[in-house]
Amino acid sequence: VVGASGYSGAVFTALASNHPNLELRFATSDKAAGEPVASRLGLPNGSKLRFSSHDDALKLSHDVDVVVIASSSEHAMRLAPVIAAHARVVDLSGAFRLDAAAYPKWYGFEHAAASELQRAFYGLPELFGPPPSETRIVSNPGCYATAGLLAAAPLLRDAVASADDVIIDGKSGISGAGRRADEAYSFVELAEEVRAYKVGTHAHTPEIARYLQRYAHGSAEPRVTFTPHLVPLRRGLLVTAYMVARQGATTESVRASLERSYEGKSFVRVVGIDEVSAHAAAGTPMALVGACVTGHRIVSVCALDNLLKGAASQAMQNVNALLGLPDAAGLSTYARFAP
Amino acid sequence: VVGASGYSGAVFTALASNHPNLELRFATSDKAAGEPVASRLGLPNGSKLRFSSHDDALKLSHDVDVVVIASSSEHAMRLAPVIAAHARVVDLSGAFRLDAAAYPKWYGFEHAAASELQRAFYGLPELFGPPPSETRIVSNPGCYATAGLLAAAPLLRDAVASADDVIIDGKSGISGAGRRADEAYSFVELAEEVRAYKVGTHAHTPEIARYLQRYAHGSAEPRVTFTPHLVPLRRGLLVTAYMVARQGATTESVRASLERSYEGKSFVRVVGIDEVSAHAAAGTPMALVGACVTGHRIVSVCALDNLLKGAASQAMQNVNALLGLPDAAGLSTYARFAP
Amino acid sequence: VVGASGYSGAVFTALASNHPNLELRFATSDKAAGEPVASRLGLPNGSKLRFSSHDDALKLSHDVDVVVIASSSEHAMRLAPVIAAHARVVDLSGAFRLDAAAYPKWYGFEHAAASELQRAFYGLPELFGPPPSETRIVSNPGCYATAGLLAAAPLLRDAVASADDVIIDGKSGISGAGRRADEAYSFVELAEEVRAYKVGTHAHTPEIARYLQRYAHGSAEPRVTFTPHLVPLRRGLLVTAYMVARQGATTESVRASLERSYEGKSFVRVVGIDEVSAHAAAGTPMALVGACVTGHRIVSVCALDNLLKGAASQAMQNVNALLGLPDAAGLSTYARFAP
Amino acid sequence: VVGASGYSGAVFTALASNHPNLELRFATSDKAAGEPVASRLGLPNGSKLRFSSHDDALKLSHDVDVVVIASSSEHAMRLAPVIAAHARVVDLSGAFRLDAAAYPKWYGFEHAAASELQRAFYGLPELFGPPPSETRIVSNPGCYATAGLLAAAPLLRDAVASADDVIIDGKSGISGAGRRADEAYSFVELAEEVRAYKVGTHAHTPEIARYLQRYAHGSAEPRVTFTPHLVPLRRGLLVTAYMVARQGATTESVRASLERSYEGKSFVRVVGIDEVSAHAAAGTPMALVGACVTGHRIVSVCALDNLLKGAASQAMQNVNALLGLPDAAGLSTYARFAP
Repeated sequence: VVGASGYSGAVFTALASNHPNLELRFATSDKAAGEPVASRLGLPNGSKLRFSSHDDALKLSHDVDVVVIASSSEHAMRLAPVIAAHARVVDLSGAFRLDAAAYPKWYGFEHAAASELQRAFYGLPELFGPPPSETRIVSNPGCYATAGLLAAAPLLRDAVASADDVIIDGKSGISGAGRRADEAYSFVELAEEVRAYKVGTHAHTPEIARYLQRYAHGSAEPRVTFTPHLVPLRRGLLVTAYMVARQGATTESVRASLERSYEGKSFVRVVGIDEVSAHAAAGTPMALVGACVTGHRIVSVCALDNLLKGAASQAMQNVNALLGLPDAAGLSTYARFAP
Repeated sequence: VVGASGYSGAVFTALASNHPNLELRFATSDKAAGEPVASRLGLPNGSKLRFSSHDDALKLSHDVDVVVIASSSEHAMRLAPVIAAHARVVDLSGAFRLDAAAYPKWYGFEHAAASELQRAFYGLPELFGPPPSETRIVSNPGCYATAGLLAAAPLLRDAVASADDVIIDGKSGISGAGRRADEAYSFVELAEEVRAYKVGTHAHTPEIARYLQRYAHGSAEPRVTFTPHLVPLRRGLLVTAYMVARQGATTESVRASLERSYEGKSFVRVVGIDEVSAHAAAGTPMALVGACVTGHRIVSVCALDNLLKGAASQAMQNVNALLGLPDAAGLSTYARFAP
Repeated sequence: VVGASGYSGAVFTALASNHPNLELRFATSDKAAGEPVASRLGLPNGSKLRFSSHDDALKLSHDVDVVVIASSSEHAMRLAPVIAAHARVVDLSGAFRLDAAAYPKWYGFEHAAASELQRAFYGLPELFGPPPSETRIVSNPGCYATAGLLAAAPLLRDAVASADDVIIDGKSGISGAGRRADEAYSFVELAEEVRAYKVGTHAHTPEIARYLQRYAHGSAEPRVTFTPHLVPLRRGLLVTAYMVARQGATTESVRASLERSYEGKSFVRVVGIDEVSAHAAAGTPMALVGACVTGHRIVSVCALDNLLKGAASQAMQNVNALLGLPDAAGLSTYARFAP
Repeated sequence: VVGASGYSGAVFTALASNHPNLELRFATSDKAAGEPVASRLGLPNGSKLRFSSHDDALKLSHDVDVVVIASSSEHAMRLAPVIAAHARVVDLSGAFRLDAAAYPKWYGFEHAAASELQRAFYGLPELFGPPPSETRIVSNPGCYATAGLLAAAPLLRDAVASADDVIIDGKSGISGAGRRADEAYSFVELAEEVRAYKVGTHAHTPEIARYLQRYAHGSAEPRVTFTPHLVPLRRGLLVTAYMVARQGATTESVRASLERSYEGKSFVRVVGIDEVSAHAAAGTPMALVGACVTGHRIVSVCALDNLLKGAASQAMQNVNALLGLPDAAGLSTYARFAP
């Protein structure tokens, strides 16, 4: 694991250290280099592993089958192709999600690894299946994108919804913003706060549009309006997707479409729209999805834990797929520990 | 005040007891009848008033100029017309907000006072001005409707936005649901929760559509899709309105429209869309509004305190108007007491 | 499991269903009888078990090795002795914790099973070890009592602290009060609340005094003053114990006493007093303990998750001990899922 | 106001701008120098005042009657004596609360203004009355000290409690720590946290002991053990004081002592110990106090808003006293705005 002390990297490291078929070989962190991984992350098992420095990531990657990268997009863009020469990569950053041409606008840098970008596989297993065997880099989807795509894609595919005007209103817990030493992210400032941010400029907007297009029956790229909001949760995320209902769509046909799409999937559960709950998904690798028709619009809602199905447990699904392990390996014995 | 121990009624009673030009003559509550108002509501001033019983509301209303009703919609529908014969009424319930024909569907009862309903004035001062002098019943707007209308109406009026497909995504603090003895509203169940509720069935949907039509330049009633969500705030509310941008609309023209509309208004402040904050509005009688254009859509956001601009302080604006007092009387010396 | 839909019972059921050596045979709940256990508790694995009715608890208990009771103290007092004739019992209620004579005052009922009470074993493994082989009923300690005893007992045993005047100030998350349909436990009322409750009357007071006496070197029962407080956490508990320092006690000798006591214990970790954190313990089966000397007093602090080390995971330690399994069986692969 | 953009200074500035008898002449802030005070603090009234730079504080102080200082203790220690030559000072820092000899240990600096320190008046009006007319510097008490003294002092004075062994367990909302750009104070890290901090080293410890001695009937300085804790509130503070009950003390005599002490005081209310609530005090200038006897101990609890009675509204009481205004001037028309 490269970048194991950020929230997503830490949660992935915790999952990996409990996985029956994996051995955690290294975990890098500049802040915590030299410290024992187990005590810093509160892991129960007596692993003796200590954090390595980021600078050693490349060297350490030579002895492993899969490297999970949880660092900045620009860092991942440079590191992943080099590692991919000898190990497979699951990248949690945004470095391998868009067309190269989109990077200056949405990420603020030129993409320096266009060919690897083109060959990277977008790892949202319930929609796009396992990666082909030759895959070197799996791009782990963004948290909002995972939720938005799970809520909307089946309804486009089954032509109950139009791709023409998709509005996605996202609400995310604060851990989605990563570790922050910032007054604006302090308890006092956020405990009773709701606000929109990055309106029209969040990089998950083109990500949703790009992968939704695969379900849009050859029409142009869907028009996606995406507005993320901060809400005072530690972890948890909910998106509300508004799509134009096609002729004849009903709450029943919409639900049937979702159920068909996710039948047999371990980590997506279709429920009534009022049961889609960030609280129920938190601490689990599950996404909950529900939808209904109201007037000319379909409202489809998805909740998940931004650090699990929105990051680390989805990365583990991708690691499992790369190694030929079952989708749920290492993810089946969590306890929700309700409440 | 009829119904002074619910959240909205209690906050209104607190405001009234601090108002330099008003004398609080009675406050009813069945739960607290006989108890001192000041100690139960934590009021500082030494008023000797005790709660009366709801049953005495009509009798007590004979000695006052204005009665504020903060009870259930069905109760208010029956009580307000009787009181209106001798006193003026500001009603915080939904009893006088829609066409009579809409009540069975949206409120679950037949309206029994259709003529008073027709003559009632919808009291959203920044959009509809003061009530005409002959007004007997002012209907105080719903919290979501206040925010939704403030965010959207100027943009329709100035034809920067189309009325055709207005999507309003609402996020409300839990006090908006009133006092609840209900496991689903317990701290443990809600502290890390976000979820949609009453999708397609919330009674503020037709309220927004009805009053937005006045700004829609004679076109048919706007198509409004409204989805409310619970977020774990005690008080505070934010709506995100998505409208179709008309030809030539820009973030600048949208902002100019809002500023023109609210210039000189004490209780609506136009700010940048990223500064619209439930936290900043909480504890104040202010609504904050901001908007921008992204793609073919305008995103317009409004934040307010659901118990103040969404209920009690707006009711006070309406009481002031009925009595010929300045809009801000009794509302100008609050301290935000940040944080 | 008897009483599997309350918070503690649900968490125990989740742990049991993930335990590699246990088979969950029945789970009772009157509210949820007939419903699938897995979906209601959010369990990932495909167990087909449905909730049984409470009335069937006795009948169902004939086919199992251990019954865990998570119901009211009075109910458990009647049920446990009957079940104990054919199965072993771990009781999470207060029914088997005190002298019979103490029940009317502290629990409000006469104890009807005095001989079973006398033979019951108090299951706090880090202090009192595993139950003797003939044990039929293990009484699982109260959440505050677990924390208070872990913080204080070693310091009495090693005579660095006096037993004469032990003050325990407890702070508990709201789930400690169980599922509540009560306005006073609603989000709005508790989200910014701290208050003391049951001052001088909480039933964990005599429980702490009784088991602390075993460490008091033959002196009279310690004088314990215990004041619990509600704090706005969903789960988590912290107690601050104030003891009189004996001659020569230092922060170092106090820490050494704690470390000696808990060396090799999987579920108690001794840390610096400023690192004892409810947040760090939440979601884990760990208690964190730290202490220092200030003036004539020792301050010793313990944090734990009220639903895990304060209830369900400690019950699992007791089940493990009754079945001859390792202390940490079924508890070693949790992930803290920080944050 | 010197230091008007920290939490306490901002709240004082808000109160001052609503005060009917005061004119706010200047407010300094280095971060916000040049910005309008009203918009930054969310003040409703149209004051045109802009923040001045800290460096101008001395110069600006020449034209005013009272200067309120809300800056660091070391800064206040240097500034207050200079200003006191021409204006009266209310100092919210710790610079004028202890004996000069105590500063190196508790505040980490040598006191450079010993004679002003000796003449400063400790402004806790309900215990020590108004300052003598010649007072130049009023030291505004610390938030924990205010609560601890209000809970304990009357019981020592009336000899129902002994001064020998006073234990004070404090729980404070996060705003008590001031504005923080620090990961440890981020929402994610604190939202489900309770922990002790500065055990044995918090500077309010000697402050409580020093002023409690005045009530201790000539005996030596009380032995005070004080442990502060962080709890996840934005604002609000509760202390639980444990004192040794003297012969014959009962819950009734303890309550009578409190009531005698605070009779006629606007800002301290004596209630049942279970009604002492941080939530009820928040947003108000009130302290709530309640106590009972349990075993050999008295438990006395006080709740207040750390930014109001624990800082800014108490400072306003002190300003009022210096100017000969009524105690409650500018503090009587707050609305609690429950919830």
